[in-house]
Amino acid sequence: MTTLKNKSIIDIEDLSIEEVNSILDLAETYSKQNRQRNVPYNKLQGLGLINVFFENSTRTLMSFELAGKKLGMHTVNMSVSNSSLQKGETLRDTIKTLESMLADVIVIRHSQNGVIKMIDDMVDCCVINAGNGTNSHPTQALLDALSIRNKLGTLKGIKVAICGDIRHSRVARSNIKLIKMLGGDVNIIAPKELIPSGIDNWGVSVFNDMDEGIKNCDVIMMLRLQMERMQETKISDKQAYHKLYGLNHERLENAKKDVLVMHPGPINRGVEISAELADDAERTLINYQVEMGVAVRMACLDLLTTKKQK
Amino acid sequence: MTTLKNKSIIDIEDLSIEEVNSILDLAETYSKQNRQRNVPYNKLQGLGLINVFFENSTRTLMSFELAGKKLGMHTVNMSVSNSSLQKGETLRDTIKTLESMLADVIVIRHSQNGVIKMIDDMVDCCVINAGNGTNSHPTQALLDALSIRNKLGTLKGIKVAICGDIRHSRVARSNIKLIKMLGGDVNIIAPKELIPSGIDNWGVSVFNDMDEGIKNCDVIMMLRLQMERMQETKISDKQAYHKLYGLNHERLENAKKDVLVMHPGPINRGVEISAELADDAERTLINYQVEMGVAVRMACLDLLTTKKQK
Amino acid sequence: MTTLKNKSIIDIEDLSIEEVNSILDLAETYSKQNRQRNVPYNKLQGLGLINVFFENSTRTLMSFELAGKKLGMHTVNMSVSNSSLQKGETLRDTIKTLESMLADVIVIRHSQNGVIKMIDDMVDCCVINAGNGTNSHPTQALLDALSIRNKLGTLKGIKVAICGDIRHSRVARSNIKLIKMLGGDVNIIAPKELIPSGIDNWGVSVFNDMDEGIKNCDVIMMLRLQMERMQETKISDKQAYHKLYGLNHERLENAKKDVLVMHPGPINRGVEISAELADDAERTLINYQVEMGVAVRMACLDLLTTKKQK
Repeated sequence: MTTLKNKSIIDIEDLSIEEVNSILDLAETYSKQNRQRNVPYNKLQGLGLINVFFENSTRTLMSFELAGKKLGMHTVNMSVSNSSLQKGETLRDTIKTLESMLADVIVIRHSQNGVIKMIDDMVDCCVINAGNGTNSHPTQALLDALSIRNKLGTLKGIKVAICGDIRHSRVARSNIKLIKMLGGDVNIIAPKELIPSGIDNWGVSVFNDMDEGIKNCDVIMMLRLQMERMQETKISDKQAYHKLYGLNHERLENAKKDVLVMHPGPINRGVEISAELADDAERTLINYQVEMGVAVRMACLDLLTTKKQK
Repeated sequence: MTTLKNKSIIDIEDLSIEEVNSILDLAETYSKQNRQRNVPYNKLQGLGLINVFFENSTRTLMSFELAGKKLGMHTVNMSVSNSSLQKGETLRDTIKTLESMLADVIVIRHSQNGVIKMIDDMVDCCVINAGNGTNSHPTQALLDALSIRNKLGTLKGIKVAICGDIRHSRVARSNIKLIKMLGGDVNIIAPKELIPSGIDNWGVSVFNDMDEGIKNCDVIMMLRLQMERMQETKISDKQAYHKLYGLNHERLENAKKDVLVMHPGPINRGVEISAELADDAERTLINYQVEMGVAVRMACLDLLTTKKQK
Repeated sequence: MTTLKNKSIIDIEDLSIEEVNSILDLAETYSKQNRQRNVPYNKLQGLGLINVFFENSTRTLMSFELAGKKLGMHTVNMSVSNSSLQKGETLRDTIKTLESMLADVIVIRHSQNGVIKMIDDMVDCCVINAGNGTNSHPTQALLDALSIRNKLGTLKGIKVAICGDIRHSRVARSNIKLIKMLGGDVNIIAPKELIPSGIDNWGVSVFNDMDEGIKNCDVIMMLRLQMERMQETKISDKQAYHKLYGLNHERLENAKKDVLVMHPGPINRGVEISAELADDAERTLINYQVEMGVAVRMACLDLLTTKKQK
């Protein structure tokens, strides 16, 4: 099995195409074993995983926790609210403490851009970025790519519309990098206040009109809208936002017949996606993405620790 | 081994007598193995348990967590206070997310009657009701039945007094159903404000006087009194309540010599039970019930997942 | 392998020198296995560990959690803030409940002196004191002794300076007992307000001047200074405290060339230790102590449960 050249997974651009494909291939294997309940449950036995989430999270934290446990890792979540950080300990000291406990992998979510890279430079053990500021969320992009690949066979030549609060979205940034790396095209759809400056250098097509932006796309990826962000736009309320930038069955009639609908969760029903569409398991991949998330994280844990496995 | 006909354990009346006996028989085996530390620790290896408690709990949550871990399940507790529900996600979306992570069993406690049944209908995986509103707490009834059966040999023909806040008690409701199903009789003892309307259809004898109600009973099951409930009665204070409806050594002299004293915990010392009696391990089954609780939950987890086991 | 004569580890003075040496020897083995990732991961399989921390903690709680999991114990943390204690349950009832779940080891931290001894007397299972009031923290002393022994070969004849808030420090009390038991000498260094009354009976040398106190010592053990404690002294601010009682590279020039610098963490940078020195991995054992902590706790769990192991 391929190993990764870096000791950590911090950002999509640190991975080569071959490495991405190794992760996706192994994740595909794990996703099948998960369904059949025949994961090799002691594959990573004796290795330790510590989850350190400085932002609230349910799904990503549980996804990593399950991924570690399914492979036999001893898995510990550091409770940040009870932590020594509350006693004034620096982040550096906290992380060095975790490393000293001989964690093999530290999974971190942090709100400040660049912090996870900085942490990775401090320690010898593996680090996985589980969401960093507005900048990066590599395992989300990998699980989205796996979901698309499993449904469409490839990302080469496909067109993906990413719609919503692009400006503040780490999901969007990591997905754009990965989709383009794998040969796909990206349409960005957002009100102009939610489009980041510098978008011209991203190599994407920009749309303010949603119906135009989703036309001819193979995938529509909706983003969660933080309510406080809507106020930065000139859009008056949720209903008005949904009318302009929400996805629902009616709007889907203007899209390709078999277009895939994705959302990283958690959903704001009636804002970026209608409740009816969110619940239409035939039309959306939302739950499938969650399932692939566990498999992708298992693959990441496995590939990062190859040399330490018995 | 028998399997259960339903995929979930939501309420006592969904179980047949044969199914109840299967659960109790297997729990008895596990209770012995627990004492001897020879549980088959990989019996449910590769299967996943997710605990989702929407009400605070220590003993029931830890009991399920230990039950899962003792049998080798990977066991994850969803922290509701940090969860996406705080970000406005609906309960439905949360549960579908957990199912998508391929949990084999989801254990849920929720304050609103009917919600756990509703959740069970949404998902394909197994669900165990760990306490739902005022209505049902089936694993508590099962552990109480196991405790009684181990001490008296059978529930057939025995008489059980249940005393306290019947009106708001899910423990009482589930216990009444199960005791009657297994051939026992039930005396209800409470101030009239704490007796539910419709009691006439429950097939129990109702007493407002405790000394009368416990006479000739084989078991006295005390309920926890929420302090705010006492104010609904005309009883002025804790001491007065204890005098009328509390259990202590003095009152026990009017009961059968070997009557079993039970309480689901946590106890209000000096209210529904005296501190002296609560600490008298010879006279009460309180700690024994906790022990049987782990065994009953192991049996439930095992029987629900029979088909998925290797 | 030696077993311990007591069922629990409550205080250093309950251990014989032979027992201490057994713990340290076994911990040394585990520390090597931890580095090589070849711990016998099912050594304590089937046995249960419950952590109950009534004071906030990250490092000690995680250290015990990892220690248990590395040896295959099923390990559960009781969340005190969500617990039945909030519903008015007494500590006694909580602990009896944990025992009834057939925990093999209960690890407890509590702010009130004497409480952990009292708990130990209530239960048949093993108890480990993970920090009790200002009085005792035996596993911290054991991990410090292991760290010193690994670096210097022995504690016999060595001189250790313990510096800071001695009066309120359980770390200091347990360390003094253990260092003296193993044949070392102790210098206490503190402003006089932070020296406990009764120090004359402790068998230590007392210094108010730090440069004098560290002279000729083989080890300098710094203590964390709770900020509110500084106000009990006549020292005006952090800078003034650091000048008098802080450790830094400059002050180290007055000490032995190879003196070991220790700190139990978490650190107050710039108060009891300079940031530069804290980060100087060549000069301090801070992270090494954390690593030895996991190994020492593994040894304690193992030795306490010898009779229950398969």
